[in-house]
Amino acid sequence: MKRVQVAETASLASKTVRVSGWVNAVRAHGKILFIDLRDQSGVLQVVFLPNEKAYEPAKDLRPEWVIDIVGVVSARPKQMVNDKIPTGAIELVAKELNVLSQAKTPVFEVLSDGYEISEEKRMKYRYLDLRRERMQRNLRMRHKIIHFMRDFLTREGFCEVETPCLTKSTPEGARDFLVPSRLQPGSFFALPQSPQQYKQLLQVGGIEKYFQIARCFRDEDPRADRQAEFTQLDMEMSFVEREDVMEINERLIIEIVQTFFPDKKIQEIPFPRLMYGDAIEKYKTDRPDLRKDQDSLAFCWVVDFPFFEKTGKGEWTFTHNPFSSPKPEFMQDLLNKKNIGNILTTQYDMVLNGAEIGGGSIRNHRPEALEAVFEIMGYDKKMIKENFGHMMEAFSYGAPPHGGIAYGLDRFISILLNEPNIREVIAFPKTGDSRDLLMDSPAPIGSDQLKELNISIKKNAKKR
Amino acid sequence: MKRVQVAETASLASKTVRVSGWVNAVRAHGKILFIDLRDQSGVLQVVFLPNEKAYEPAKDLRPEWVIDIVGVVSARPKQMVNDKIPTGAIELVAKELNVLSQAKTPVFEVLSDGYEISEEKRMKYRYLDLRRERMQRNLRMRHKIIHFMRDFLTREGFCEVETPCLTKSTPEGARDFLVPSRLQPGSFFALPQSPQQYKQLLQVGGIEKYFQIARCFRDEDPRADRQAEFTQLDMEMSFVEREDVMEINERLIIEIVQTFFPDKKIQEIPFPRLMYGDAIEKYKTDRPDLRKDQDSLAFCWVVDFPFFEKTGKGEWTFTHNPFSSPKPEFMQDLLNKKNIGNILTTQYDMVLNGAEIGGGSIRNHRPEALEAVFEIMGYDKKMIKENFGHMMEAFSYGAPPHGGIAYGLDRFISILLNEPNIREVIAFPKTGDSRDLLMDSPAPIGSDQLKELNISIKKNAKKR
Repeated sequence: MKRVQVAETASLASKTVRVSGWVNAVRAHGKILFIDLRDQSGVLQVVFLPNEKAYEPAKDLRPEWVIDIVGVVSARPKQMVNDKIPTGAIELVAKELNVLSQAKTPVFEVLSDGYEISEEKRMKYRYLDLRRERMQRNLRMRHKIIHFMRDFLTREGFCEVETPCLTKSTPEGARDFLVPSRLQPGSFFALPQSPQQYKQLLQVGGIEKYFQIARCFRDEDPRADRQAEFTQLDMEMSFVEREDVMEINERLIIEIVQTFFPDKKIQEIPFPRLMYGDAIEKYKTDRPDLRKDQDSLAFCWVVDFPFFEKTGKGEWTFTHNPFSSPKPEFMQDLLNKKNIGNILTTQYDMVLNGAEIGGGSIRNHRPEALEAVFEIMGYDKKMIKENFGHMMEAFSYGAPPHGGIAYGLDRFISILLNEPNIREVIAFPKTGDSRDLLMDSPAPIGSDQLKELNISIKKNAKKR
Repeated sequence: MKRVQVAETASLASKTVRVSGWVNAVRAHGKILFIDLRDQSGVLQVVFLPNEKAYEPAKDLRPEWVIDIVGVVSARPKQMVNDKIPTGAIELVAKELNVLSQAKTPVFEVLSDGYEISEEKRMKYRYLDLRRERMQRNLRMRHKIIHFMRDFLTREGFCEVETPCLTKSTPEGARDFLVPSRLQPGSFFALPQSPQQYKQLLQVGGIEKYFQIARCFRDEDPRADRQAEFTQLDMEMSFVEREDVMEINERLIIEIVQTFFPDKKIQEIPFPRLMYGDAIEKYKTDRPDLRKDQDSLAFCWVVDFPFFEKTGKGEWTFTHNPFSSPKPEFMQDLLNKKNIGNILTTQYDMVLNGAEIGGGSIRNHRPEALEAVFEIMGYDKKMIKENFGHMMEAFSYGAPPHGGIAYGLDRFISILLNEPNIREVIAFPKTGDSRDLLMDSPAPIGSDQLKELNISIKKNAKKR
């Protein structure tokens, strides 16, 4: 007999059906045994009556056992109807019971929301933790939101392109994760901090509307709400100006909220725009929380950031992205390397309830202007050529004006789902110091593996 | 004025429009200048007449310059109509011309199919190579096919879950890429060869229908048609038997072919099924090419593989996947470690025109049976616990029966697109010895980076 999902049983009264799932709870009422059976669609009350052959084996059932039941769907007595669940008007009278897998007593409760349990324990036993209704909802909503993004962008003519994960270390932004090459001894790949360079090269290659749900990697020092690997919605478009990128993105975000969270109120449409200088003056931050009502979603754009700022050592560095274009009226100053501190970038950040969820810019597709950016930051010609020569060369073969944006999806989705941190919307997150407690990684490796990679571990390395 | 795509101009006769793109070709006819303008939607003939202000600057135009034109769409004289392109009945009479980016003379032709050009050169200048019509079609069809897979599986109730890329090295299958941990000196992450363990843990976690378009990594010796990183459609389902997995997958593959390649003929539906022994006897291979017509798509399933085979050293190893379940009638032999060479696995491979495009199995969700597999392969208790203890423990907390499949998408898509190798359907492929010629990676890194990672390069390492 073909299995049905427990949610389907609500409309199958008097039918004989087969269901499978986990024992959610067990209780007895006199001689009658009740269990709640859980599958991905919901929960169903199952009754074991003493005269049925399923009765004897049912006495052994414990929470989290996996079972398969054939039974008859029956209307519950009126006073027993439970309005709170979709299957609350029926129950399954079990005829046959098959135990598919027994379970040890779970190390923690899976019927609660789980916030009360130590997070280290939840990560180590993530396969138990994911069974709770909240985590199931989070992963399924994450899938739906991301699938909606793909649908929306595909309808708008975008093409998703997969870019490499084994790429090159370049001196920009955060610290890279590195991968020793076995075939090129002494050389290393870097895992990408973002697909920034590849997506720009795709624009030079004629993919005029690109997007990717992209895995990104940053080897950061321990920070509470960061992950070593995270997911971006990455986007880039050719022949556009700032307004074009902002328009389609604002439309995408509004449609997501209205589709999946119709009860949530977007505080202001169109999203208000703040100039960086005004935001700092008024809110003392460039990520202001504009909520008047705590339940609303207060989006805003922040624009007109300075392109450069001074480092602690007094050298110039970029505030957001070295590949950005200055606002058109500052291009001449950039090329002349004059009034550096006053140059504004085309950068636009999207802020939601005080968190930066996305950011991007119109890019600098003139090779000589890109070179000026690196020169201002003190890179010499050799360093520029070694690290960014391929970009400059690409731009010399006919580069369209282009711009884009990238969103930190983990953060955006966690805010939409009212979760306190991004780990609640990631299937297998790592600890703050980047350990996977379930797999017990990172871990020492064999000496033969080290030998093959032509590397050795320094003697003063702290052993685990 | 808002830009239109060149394909849209076909229906805009007598309208003034703005278009942008690359100069595809330049020619003169007496005093009149013609160019073909190319954007992602197609090609448009543009005419520069001597009396227009766009005429003088148009004299400088060269192939691959990026330009922006305002002009009037006009019907072509009857004898000049080109039936071969959608815009062949019209041309654009240019009024204004704006050069967005000049271009050096391209290092190779971008109007041809490109097969005649050295592949190393095509990889180094991939941003030029991607401009050719064939590569544009390949990337766009790849997007459409993968998006269709996501749509299909989402409709069928599947949930896409992203699993980690920074995970653990385990002694199975091919060689891992390793990532030194800076925060845990002396320890390493491994990049996943597949999400096999995580997708099984998701089944234990109640995600009953999982899929993922997953990046996978294998550090293989140079082989012509392999890539160090590649893309899988990865899938896993709970409470299923072999027939359930095969049914939904056969339906998915047939729908893809019928949707995107209506002219291609699938040789036989339902896909024929061959037993491994029969395939070897009749075709001398377990990936037979069953085509009677060279143009057809000859799919078949191969089943009933032996679970174990002897290595060169005379030890037992798995033929496909250590996490597979034996066929039910061989479970007792597995548990008793008897008749090992005769045990058949639940493995099913999907073969297309002589290439294995996918494979999977029903998994072994009984901890004691999984332990028996590793014992047969000669692993001692300590090694099993260290490497697979987390899987065995997960299965002890109530594991549903489950099974799945994974496809090598690069291969499948290259066959559908009649391409001779997988690099033709990958945006930024690497060479056979895993070098990225565009980024020039892998590359040496700075001594400060090595120091931070607590590793050193062995002195005898060959320097680049």
